[in-house]
Amino acid sequence: MAIWNGKVLNLCFLWLLVSTVLLNGADCHSWKKSKLPKPCRNLVLYFHDIIYNGKNAENATSALVAAPEGANLTIMTGNNHFGNLAVFDDPITLDNNLHSPPVGRAQGFYFYDMKNTFSSWLGFTFVLNSTDYKGTITFNGADPILVKYRDISVVGGTGDFLMARGIATINTDAYEGDVYFRLRVNITLYECY
Amino acid sequence: MAIWNGKVLNLCFLWLLVSTVLLNGADCHSWKKSKLPKPCRNLVLYFHDIIYNGKNAENATSALVAAPEGANLTIMTGNNHFGNLAVFDDPITLDNNLHSPPVGRAQGFYFYDMKNTFSSWLGFTFVLNSTDYKGTITFNGADPILVKYRDISVVGGTGDFLMARGIATINTDAYEGDVYFRLRVNITLYECY
Amino acid sequence: MAIWNGKVLNLCFLWLLVSTVLLNGADCHSWKKSKLPKPCRNLVLYFHDIIYNGKNAENATSALVAAPEGANLTIMTGNNHFGNLAVFDDPITLDNNLHSPPVGRAQGFYFYDMKNTFSSWLGFTFVLNSTDYKGTITFNGADPILVKYRDISVVGGTGDFLMARGIATINTDAYEGDVYFRLRVNITLYECY
Repeated sequence: MAIWNGKVLNLCFLWLLVSTVLLNGADCHSWKKSKLPKPCRNLVLYFHDIIYNGKNAENATSALVAAPEGANLTIMTGNNHFGNLAVFDDPITLDNNLHSPPVGRAQGFYFYDMKNTFSSWLGFTFVLNSTDYKGTITFNGADPILVKYRDISVVGGTGDFLMARGIATINTDAYEGDVYFRLRVNITLYECY
Repeated sequence: MAIWNGKVLNLCFLWLLVSTVLLNGADCHSWKKSKLPKPCRNLVLYFHDIIYNGKNAENATSALVAAPEGANLTIMTGNNHFGNLAVFDDPITLDNNLHSPPVGRAQGFYFYDMKNTFSSWLGFTFVLNSTDYKGTITFNGADPILVKYRDISVVGGTGDFLMARGIATINTDAYEGDVYFRLRVNITLYECY
Repeated sequence: MAIWNGKVLNLCFLWLLVSTVLLNGADCHSWKKSKLPKPCRNLVLYFHDIIYNGKNAENATSALVAAPEGANLTIMTGNNHFGNLAVFDDPITLDNNLHSPPVGRAQGFYFYDMKNTFSSWLGFTFVLNSTDYKGTITFNGADPILVKYRDISVVGGTGDFLMARGIATINTDAYEGDVYFRLRVNITLYECY
């Protein structure tokens, strides 16, 4: 049952015309848009993930904790890592240098969820604790890794980022085999308190 | 410590009376409601989950990746599947036919979290990529499977669904043993940009 | 690349001065704040988690379902439980007594995500079904357990809590070894419909 079929669209279009003339504003049930507020805050941060592979316990910042039947937890699964779930506590830096002084920790989980390509899903929080930022920002969303820039949702925040909403545009800034990756996170907030 | 006990309610009620008269609006701390905006967008979509059972690797769209002690990952656990966690990449269709052309993928995870009945918790994203929709909608919430219609939260979105908020009313449209289920998802958004 | 470096801040400061005078409001791109709405609802609730340890199947309300390589699912891992992921269905009470009549269930998951201290990440829903509350509230966020009061985000709600947003201040009200903990959750909502 397509809800955007011809009839609905036509009615919708008519109503749009009428309401634009009479009410000085579009009011079609299925399409009513609000004006997007201007972004109120923008942050660019990097985080660095080093996954445990059985040999790097000292440096690792994340570990596989779940995998499909037959897999183990020190080697990524073959089907584009499908089903691998990792828990992480990664340093956040202001630039792309792993050894820069961290401004906080990215904490959460990701898992790979496609068999025929690399793609993941993220649930994590930036726990920021520096001179400039104190508070948390929480993110949720699909991360189609092979797309250069992909957006996930900012679903909440605390402290300096109380009630934050918006999006984060992620790109993979570096990737070294299955062990290390670095994400650049460009956060655009539309609600700031 | 009940916060809605008699005293609070009474004070609350008095303040409500006073503020309604003086300020032309209710302002009781614990009860102040805003007017719900009208829904700005409504979508009905279906997604289809085929779980890996050890024999259906080609067709499966999801797999168990975690389970309680003693369980394996190709058979659902006995206690109403308590503790089984699945990762999925399911096709989304406009109607209830698994073989209809998909308009996107539902990607995320669910787990069963009750021992004495079937109930689950969902975290997932609709990744939509069709003529009509381009963007993502992310959902979170408890899913008491045996209730006919249950609501979960829309916690964010990107692209056409930038900053989406609202609810999704889910019902199980079909269920075939432990291998296949189809959910109808009726999404009501209250914030559209 | 520090986005809060000197130049940006100086431009920002100038713009702030100009816009405050001319437009009667600060409008600096990176700092524009909205006025925080007053809290519209406040709830204090407790929930109780009894984790399965291999011997308490009858009483347990949660179970480990994932852990790093080499760990089993009836004993918490040594590195501050790093990588342990639990699924739970915990009773919610109005006071700190496990045996008080529950007003709902806290359902979701948590995992421990730091190797050098106790810290976790939470994704869960309060499913409330009492005389006073009917609906759900969903939470996401980092939980640095050893901090006395820590904030997580309210990312959505349904029913009485439709479209809820805000924060929850959590404190560990009791902790008994690795088996039982009780959290006091002080929920402050800024959007109520």
